[in-house]
Amino acid sequence: MKIAVVGLGLIGGSLCKAIKKRTSYTCLGLDTDAETCRMALEQEAVDEIIAPAGLAAADVVFLCLHPRQTIEFLLAHLGDTRPGALLLDTCGVKGAVVDAVDRPVHEAGRLFVGCHPMAGREFSGFAYAVDDLFERASFIVTPTALTDPAALEQAERLAMEIGFARTVRAAPETHDRIIAFTSQLAHVASSAYVKSPTIERRAGFSAGSFLDLTRVARLNEDMWTDLFLYNRDALLAEVDTLIAHLGEYRDALKDNDADRLRALLRDGRERKERSLDEQGGF
Amino acid sequence: MKIAVVGLGLIGGSLCKAIKKRTSYTCLGLDTDAETCRMALEQEAVDEIIAPAGLAAADVVFLCLHPRQTIEFLLAHLGDTRPGALLLDTCGVKGAVVDAVDRPVHEAGRLFVGCHPMAGREFSGFAYAVDDLFERASFIVTPTALTDPAALEQAERLAMEIGFARTVRAAPETHDRIIAFTSQLAHVASSAYVKSPTIERRAGFSAGSFLDLTRVARLNEDMWTDLFLYNRDALLAEVDTLIAHLGEYRDALKDNDADRLRALLRDGRERKERSLDEQGGF
Repeated sequence: MKIAVVGLGLIGGSLCKAIKKRTSYTCLGLDTDAETCRMALEQEAVDEIIAPAGLAAADVVFLCLHPRQTIEFLLAHLGDTRPGALLLDTCGVKGAVVDAVDRPVHEAGRLFVGCHPMAGREFSGFAYAVDDLFERASFIVTPTALTDPAALEQAERLAMEIGFARTVRAAPETHDRIIAFTSQLAHVASSAYVKSPTIERRAGFSAGSFLDLTRVARLNEDMWTDLFLYNRDALLAEVDTLIAHLGEYRDALKDNDADRLRALLRDGRERKERSLDEQGGF
Repeated sequence: MKIAVVGLGLIGGSLCKAIKKRTSYTCLGLDTDAETCRMALEQEAVDEIIAPAGLAAADVVFLCLHPRQTIEFLLAHLGDTRPGALLLDTCGVKGAVVDAVDRPVHEAGRLFVGCHPMAGREFSGFAYAVDDLFERASFIVTPTALTDPAALEQAERLAMEIGFARTVRAAPETHDRIIAFTSQLAHVASSAYVKSPTIERRAGFSAGSFLDLTRVARLNEDMWTDLFLYNRDALLAEVDTLIAHLGEYRDALKDNDADRLRALLRDGRERKERSLDEQGGF
């Protein structure tokens, strides 16, 4: 089987490396950056670099571009892919992407499954791609009424072969509502956290909690702006929820109300522990 | 030299273990819980368990209790300590503790230095104490006009012997203002984060960002309520600052303003990177 990976950034590059490490499939890489292509060949992350016309050789195509570019590339190059090919995106938002490409791909006689490999790092680009990025990660698939059941199963099987820890099925809207909380809100909160002027005096005063809270403030602002705006309603609701809850702690502090503050903290601890008990680390 | 440790919880127990591992000092332990005392002896974290009267044998006394109990214990048992003994607290807030004990200790002819070992875990109690808890941590000392310079230097030297990575000097109020941001705000934000009802649907949808943002929601609510209220003004200002900044992201989202959102995220990334460049991990 031949798998093409379009976009050899952190996710695409790591997919190539995991495919080469764990399967015997042929891996075809496509990227607009010549240096990236050279590195991918040199590190044997891909067997071959292709142009869009070369997509015709692929049984499976992974699109590893930002949401806007994923939609554009897929619609522009549908004709370059082989009839019956399995096309998989890897965007962090699913509703907008699936809505835009599901029907056109179906009508063109190709198979599409919306996917979200739940992994990342604070760094972008092929230089940071690693073959074990997905080892503890979920591979989420978001089927719709148009999704071919065999294609869905093939996508899930492939994810397990590549080394994901688990696959999860969810409707695109369900995915987006939950991801607004588990991933997008974390990036907003982390980014807002570092805005306090006190950060400039923190040398020597930081333990793990500060580092944990602010790690993902180091993000790719172009990609996350797109992801946020494609999932605006769900993320807005989560940001408002967080602001409202922070206001409860603020009010308890302002009122010097130890009992209320303790109750808020206890409730938070219990929710966190319940979530760990029921769901483990993921 | 004999070092007494009062309160064999996570911090006190870890101090004992680090003292026994890295120095040849005698370690005396004091705790109201018989099972804790038994474990500390069994694990050779202490050479001897003492009652308050036994403090007279100690050259150095580490108080490892919550802020309220630290103040109470120190004032109640000052007469049990040896004249000239070095008394060190380990509370996460310094202004309130130092204000309460600095002069009484001085007038009683003992030496006091306010200290904050910047380390912790999501778990409390001796059972979680480890001998390497402080290996990458700062040991902050907060001298005042009453602090004996030789006592301050002895506290710093002892911290390095015990294995802290560095010592930092700061006025108690400076410590409290910065710690409100680097530690207390992290616990408030994390505790508020897990309050979204979406947490109950997160299974399979979490990557590192969610786990990092919510790790410290698992806290000891009694201790943190005290710490927060002893540092109320500084923490209130930081919570208000965070809420105001979150509001900027919310407004940019609401207005569907990609440029504003991107600028907010870019600014956050740059602040985080600058803070890493200038100050490293701590």
